[in-house]
Amino acid sequence: MTELLRREPNVISAGLGLLADAAERQAARVTRVDWKPPMTGVEDDLVTVVGDPRRVAANAAAVERMLGVRAQLVDVLPARAALGLSAGEFLHAGPPVTWDRASGPLRGAIMGATVLEGMAGDPQAGAALAERGAIMLDPCHAHGAVGPMAGVISPSMWVFALEDPASGRRSYCSLNEGLGKVLRYGAYSADVIERLKWMSASLGPLLQAAVRAGGPIDVTAILAQMVQMGDEAHNRNRTGTLMLLRDLLPSLVQAPFPASEVSSAVAFIGGNDHFFLNLAMPACKLALDAARNIPGSSMVVAMARNGTDFGIQVSGTGDQWFTAPALTPEGLFLGSYGPADANPDIGDSAITETAGLGGFAMATAPAIVRLVGGSVSDALATTRRMYEITLAEHPLFQVPALEFRGTPAGIDMTLVVRTGILPQINTGMAGKVAGTGQVGAGLVTPPAEIFPAALRALALTVG
Amino acid sequence: MTELLRREPNVISAGLGLLADAAERQAARVTRVDWKPPMTGVEDDLVTVVGDPRRVAANAAAVERMLGVRAQLVDVLPARAALGLSAGEFLHAGPPVTWDRASGPLRGAIMGATVLEGMAGDPQAGAALAERGAIMLDPCHAHGAVGPMAGVISPSMWVFALEDPASGRRSYCSLNEGLGKVLRYGAYSADVIERLKWMSASLGPLLQAAVRAGGPIDVTAILAQMVQMGDEAHNRNRTGTLMLLRDLLPSLVQAPFPASEVSSAVAFIGGNDHFFLNLAMPACKLALDAARNIPGSSMVVAMARNGTDFGIQVSGTGDQWFTAPALTPEGLFLGSYGPADANPDIGDSAITETAGLGGFAMATAPAIVRLVGGSVSDALATTRRMYEITLAEHPLFQVPALEFRGTPAGIDMTLVVRTGILPQINTGMAGKVAGTGQVGAGLVTPPAEIFPAALRALALTVG
Repeated sequence: MTELLRREPNVISAGLGLLADAAERQAARVTRVDWKPPMTGVEDDLVTVVGDPRRVAANAAAVERMLGVRAQLVDVLPARAALGLSAGEFLHAGPPVTWDRASGPLRGAIMGATVLEGMAGDPQAGAALAERGAIMLDPCHAHGAVGPMAGVISPSMWVFALEDPASGRRSYCSLNEGLGKVLRYGAYSADVIERLKWMSASLGPLLQAAVRAGGPIDVTAILAQMVQMGDEAHNRNRTGTLMLLRDLLPSLVQAPFPASEVSSAVAFIGGNDHFFLNLAMPACKLALDAARNIPGSSMVVAMARNGTDFGIQVSGTGDQWFTAPALTPEGLFLGSYGPADANPDIGDSAITETAGLGGFAMATAPAIVRLVGGSVSDALATTRRMYEITLAEHPLFQVPALEFRGTPAGIDMTLVVRTGILPQINTGMAGKVAGTGQVGAGLVTPPAEIFPAALRALALTVG
Repeated sequence: MTELLRREPNVISAGLGLLADAAERQAARVTRVDWKPPMTGVEDDLVTVVGDPRRVAANAAAVERMLGVRAQLVDVLPARAALGLSAGEFLHAGPPVTWDRASGPLRGAIMGATVLEGMAGDPQAGAALAERGAIMLDPCHAHGAVGPMAGVISPSMWVFALEDPASGRRSYCSLNEGLGKVLRYGAYSADVIERLKWMSASLGPLLQAAVRAGGPIDVTAILAQMVQMGDEAHNRNRTGTLMLLRDLLPSLVQAPFPASEVSSAVAFIGGNDHFFLNLAMPACKLALDAARNIPGSSMVVAMARNGTDFGIQVSGTGDQWFTAPALTPEGLFLGSYGPADANPDIGDSAITETAGLGGFAMATAPAIVRLVGGSVSDALATTRRMYEITLAEHPLFQVPALEFRGTPAGIDMTLVVRTGILPQINTGMAGKVAGTGQVGAGLVTPPAEIFPAALRALALTVG
C-alpha cells in the first residue's frame, strides 16, 4: 500500500465521474470505464437469471433457431380461410386489449372493418357494435400473424402466408394498403373501405394466382438483399417492394385475369414503397416463433403495441405478455400535424426490430433519417448501440457501411436490464383520433419497466 | 528579421517533408500543408488557362447546362432508324479506332455484329470482312450515342432514345444483354447472337410499345433515387433496373403482345441487375453534351475507351479527342480468370464518372466493393477525393452516407493537372482475346498524360 502511494497514481474509474474529475484536476492519469449500474431493483433477479445454468445453451438455441428459418411466400388467401376467422372475429396488433381500453387508431380500424365486413352501415354503427361486445378481439401474435399499426385483420381481408420449408410452420400478415388515409392508421372513410374491397376482390386473388403459379418467393433472400440496398425493412421497404414485384411478374403477367386488372395491381404495388413491409414482418415473426418456449432463454421473441400498451414476450416465459403504457414516438410530422396529434406507439411492426431489422439496421438505411428524423450519424450510432443488447450478428443481414457486419439480432433482456439500453424502434405515427390516418413517423423505445417485469418472471422459472 | 529569430519558430511547410522533419526534430511547431506540385511541364499552360478571363464564367455555364438537363426515356427503336445507320456502318465505344488497332473485345463484338446483321456466316468470316475494310467504324460519341464496353451498335440492334424536354436534344444507347458471355464483352458464340436476335425481334418492340403507350420515363429522377438506394449507376444498377421495371409495367402488361412474350421480357430485365446501365449512360451523355463547346471551359465532357486508347473531350476544345494507351483495371476476377486475361480499359461507360456517378459516387454504394475490390472506407475516400477535381456537387445525386452531400460532378481538367489526382473509374473487365466475354470488374484511371495534352490545346485557344 505504501509502495502504491509512492508511485505515480494511475486511476481507473467506473460509474459516476466525481472521483475521476477530482483525480484529473490533480493531474493524475485517469482511464474512464463506460459503466452504468443496472436498472433499479433488478439485482436479485439478474443474479438468478444470469446464474441459471440453462441460460447460455438456451440462448444459443434460441439464436440458432431464429437464424435457421427461411421464410417463403407460399400463398395469398382470405383471413377467413388462412386463420379460421369467423364473422365478428377480428385480430389486432400488440398485446391483448379490450374495446374500452383501445386507442383511437385501433378503434378506427375496428370501426372500418365492421363496414368492410358488412356488419355495420357506417363506422359509428360499427363502434356501437364493438361497444356492446359484438366483436371478438384477439392479438394477431396469438394466431401466428402480425399486422402493422392497428393491425386489424377481419375475415374477408386477404393475407400473405409465409412458410419455413424446413419445419412447415407458417406465419401470416395482411396486404399493405399504402400510406396516409388507410385503415391500419385508423382511417375509415369511404375511399379506405373501397380500397380494401378492391384488395379483397382483385389484388388478393391475382396475387394468389401469381404465387401459386410461380412458386414460392424467398422473402428471407429479399430481406438479405434489401439490407444492402438502403432498406431497413421497417420504414424503408423500397427495394424490397421492387424485388417482390420483379419476382412476381413473370407469373403475374400470365395470370388468367384481364390485362387492365394486372396493370392496376402492378401500379398499386409499384406505387407503394411500403408494400413489402407486410412480408418483412411475417418473415421476422416466423423466425422468432421458432425461438419460442425455450426454458431458461432470456431472448425477446416479440415486441408489439396495441396503441395503449407496449408488450414483450420472452422465449423462456412462454406466451406471457409483459406490458406497460406505450410511449409516444418523436419524429417528423406530415402536413400540419404535430406532436399533439400523435397516438402512442402502435403496431406489430416492432417484430422487425426484434429480429435485427428496422431500428436495429438503421446504419444500412441512412436515408431513413429524412422520414423519422435525426442525422445519419445517429442512424449509424443506433445500430452500433444495439450490439450491446443483442446475442448475435445476423449472418444474412449484412451492413455494407459497417464493412458487411451482420445486424444486431436477438435481444437479450438481461443485457437490456443490465445496461439500461432500450431497443430502438422506428415507426409510423397514427393520429390519436379515430378516423385520422397517418400523422408522421419517428423514433420510440419500449417503456423501460417491462424488462424488469419479464426478468422477474424468468427468474421465477429458475429451479 | 532579427525580431523573427528572437521568437519561438512556427513553421508552415508545403510539399516535401524534409524541412518539416528537420524542424520537428528541433522541437519547432510545424504545420504541414498537403501540397503537391502540378503534373510535370504544365506550368505555362496552367498559367495561361487559369488566367483566361473566360474560364470562370465558361465553367459556371458548363456546370449549369450539365445540371439543367432532365433525361427522359421517350422511345425505343432500331439503330437503323434512330441513328441513320446503313448496312455495314457500326458504332463503337471510345475515341476513333481502326480494325488493325482494335482490341480483342472490340474485334469480337464487331465479328459478332456481322453475324447478327447477316453480313457473315460466322465470326471469322466477319473478321475477314472487317480486315478488308467492309465495315465502317465510327465512335458512338460522334452520333449522340454511348455503348458500354465494346459499345458496338449495328443497324439492326435496338436502342433507347432519351430526350431533354427543354431542348429537344436526344441521346441513344443499346439495350443491355446481361453479364458474362455477351457481345459487349467481345463474346460472339451462337447463344450471344441468338439473344441479340430475340432482343431485336421481341424485347425491343415490346419496350417500344410500352414506352409509347405509357409516356416518357424520367431517367434522371430514377438516377436521383437509386443513388439513395445503394446504386452508383455504373457497376451497380440494381434498384435502377427495378424502378425502370416498375415504371414500365402498367403499360407493358397491356401491350398487344402474347403474355408469354411479356413474361419473358420482364424475367429478362428483372434477372439482369445491369439493365438500367444502358439508361444511366445516355442520361449522363445527354447532360454532358449540353455542356460542350463553351469557349474557355476546362470541364471534361467525355471520358471513353475503345480497349486500345483512353480518350477525353473537353468543353472548350470541341470534338477533339486527347488520347493515350488505356490502362488495365485492377480488381476481382470471375472463375479462374486472372490479371493476364484482362483487356485494357474499354467502354463509353466512364460517361457516368464524367457526370458525377460511378466511381465518383462510390460512397453511396459501399456494397460495390464486393464486385470491384477494395474496402468500404476506400469507397468513401474515393468520393471524397473526387471533390478535389470537380466543379460542382450534383444537387440531385445526394449521398445519404455523406449527410446528403451531392456527388462530385463536372471534372475540371485544370484541377486534375494541378493536383495530380486522376478521375476514379470503376468498370467491368473484358477478356483480351476476342470471343471471351467478361473476366472481372475493377478500378482504373485514365492515363495521366491526356490531361496535360488537353490543357495545351485549351491554352492555344486563349487569345
